[in-house]
Amino acid sequence: MNKYISKVVKVGPYKLGGKNPVRVQSMCTTDTRDVSSTVKQILALEKAGCEIIRVAVPDMVAAKALGKIKKQIHIPLVADIHLNYELALEAAEQGVDKIRINPGNIGTDENVKKVVAVCKKKKIPIRIGINGGSLEKDILKKYKGKVTAAGMVESAMRHIRILEKHNFKNILISLKASDIERTVEAYRMLAKKVKYPLHIGVTEAGTIFRGTVMSSIGLGTLLYEGIGATLRVSLTADPLEEMKVAWEILKSLKLRKRGVTVTSCPTCGRTQIDLINLAEKVEEAVKFMDKDIHIAVMGCVVNGPGEAREADIGVAGGQGAGAIFRHGQVVKSVKENEILAALLEEIEKL
Amino acid sequence: MNKYISKVVKVGPYKLGGKNPVRVQSMCTTDTRDVSSTVKQILALEKAGCEIIRVAVPDMVAAKALGKIKKQIHIPLVADIHLNYELALEAAEQGVDKIRINPGNIGTDENVKKVVAVCKKKKIPIRIGINGGSLEKDILKKYKGKVTAAGMVESAMRHIRILEKHNFKNILISLKASDIERTVEAYRMLAKKVKYPLHIGVTEAGTIFRGTVMSSIGLGTLLYEGIGATLRVSLTADPLEEMKVAWEILKSLKLRKRGVTVTSCPTCGRTQIDLINLAEKVEEAVKFMDKDIHIAVMGCVVNGPGEAREADIGVAGGQGAGAIFRHGQVVKSVKENEILAALLEEIEKL
Repeated sequence: MNKYISKVVKVGPYKLGGKNPVRVQSMCTTDTRDVSSTVKQILALEKAGCEIIRVAVPDMVAAKALGKIKKQIHIPLVADIHLNYELALEAAEQGVDKIRINPGNIGTDENVKKVVAVCKKKKIPIRIGINGGSLEKDILKKYKGKVTAAGMVESAMRHIRILEKHNFKNILISLKASDIERTVEAYRMLAKKVKYPLHIGVTEAGTIFRGTVMSSIGLGTLLYEGIGATLRVSLTADPLEEMKVAWEILKSLKLRKRGVTVTSCPTCGRTQIDLINLAEKVEEAVKFMDKDIHIAVMGCVVNGPGEAREADIGVAGGQGAGAIFRHGQVVKSVKENEILAALLEEIEKL
Repeated sequence: MNKYISKVVKVGPYKLGGKNPVRVQSMCTTDTRDVSSTVKQILALEKAGCEIIRVAVPDMVAAKALGKIKKQIHIPLVADIHLNYELALEAAEQGVDKIRINPGNIGTDENVKKVVAVCKKKKIPIRIGINGGSLEKDILKKYKGKVTAAGMVESAMRHIRILEKHNFKNILISLKASDIERTVEAYRMLAKKVKYPLHIGVTEAGTIFRGTVMSSIGLGTLLYEGIGATLRVSLTADPLEEMKVAWEILKSLKLRKRGVTVTSCPTCGRTQIDLINLAEKVEEAVKFMDKDIHIAVMGCVVNGPGEAREADIGVAGGQGAGAIFRHGQVVKSVKENEILAALLEEIEKL
């Protein structure tokens, strides 16, 4: 399968699209007008791996707060705007790094011209954000009242053409639906029509567990095909949880690295050590370790050594004991209660 | 994309493959020789949605325990056997519903003939289970010591040809690697070569969180392409956790139904009710409800009503209030503290 490769658009210091790293983003749940709460949440998100942050801009007070927020954070700031072009003008003046607005929804062509002019001047890209829940009425009607992937793409193309008509191509696009199939199909269809970088996400995914599964499947499927210059995991939860999931998806697909990776076997009737406990302890011990290494925690000798051979460090359990591997070589065999210490010792040596 | 459609194989009462439902399976972590512990675990797994259960059969004592286990459970029992063909003969005599064994690893052609004969007589399918961690040495050598998708498929084809040579085609196949790319590529390659039903899984996926993300991406990608007659989510955790993830994957892809589905929005600066809390309460309240319905819990009026319209029941939050929808019609508006009760009342009416 050929991977999708988009054009490149700059958001703050980051190049998005092409073969650049897929960037993790989130959206604040705070009231944007409350600068200190918003900044506090953004700083916490930065620590957790957030690389681009979006805030809702519902009114002019929020728009005017953007400059103050921007000064106190270290990652690109995106203004999320609906319907009101004047908020976009103000956000641009306040120095945001990207604006999310749908140009077909902001009134006259004059309004679009003004937004485009300021974005060109400030070199700010615009994200067109299509959401299955808010498709244009005529498009909904055309598809018999149903939200379809084709309808979402049609809506996106309409907004894209408006910006292109004004010779503005500094564009990113998202097409979020609340189910996997429509989301994946919409992005696939759009990727055949345009080469703009795509912001991917499954919206209204749900609470932590359901949202983790939904986002992993939907975003994982797209990323595997090269679709996705930046991703947002949407969870009905503290946005810090979104960071955990987003990074785990990127790490699972080997698209980004962040900290230690622990693989472990599911255990079975052959396992002769307390593997679940061991794997959890290892995971806990390396949680904040700033190394890009792969550790394998394996219960038995059937697949254990084979798997551990591929990891930087590994253990394959036997009867009340474990064989510690390092880069494919057995370095020692230890008793079960010494496995964790022996593993950590080998990790330290790397 | 054309979906893969396999042949159909029967495992106990279930038809696997073709357009039949994708079945959820797991593997016991108990010692199979300990019949009461094993039965206890299987009964708990049945309640959690396990539809096929596998147990390790490391020796003849375990093999002889299979009949006793089988009598006390309600789902098909699979014997997991390595290297020893006599254990397979005994397992078949004990009445198991499927045997997992790799015919290339059980010695002489005579041994294969005996296993095939008893499986034909008892109408038991054989699963060939290829695992990246235990590839044949000559295949590993051919691929320069690396575990590759091509090498895994080559190994599978070797075992398949042995069974086919004995005119045995009651086969399922798995190709598990510990990373997503090799797993997905191996299944895709094999799906172009054979039409046997495929048992899918990412092995050594890790602890609950990492394993959930890995399995969701890997299995989700395959299921989306029609690959997967039955699935196993491997977690280094209590197998009950595997059931939760497996079902959530199938529900997310709308391949199976089980209980109530709750979607909810990620909240943002526009949200004017305590949505995270509400979504969690709704999820908790419907957890054990035996209805196949879709509930949407939405924070604001931008996408809320559009999304809620597609759900059986929905709420879109406003300022300290919520509009309750039912099959696309607003049925009432209530104060924030009355939303949960109003939703549950509407659910009860369905």
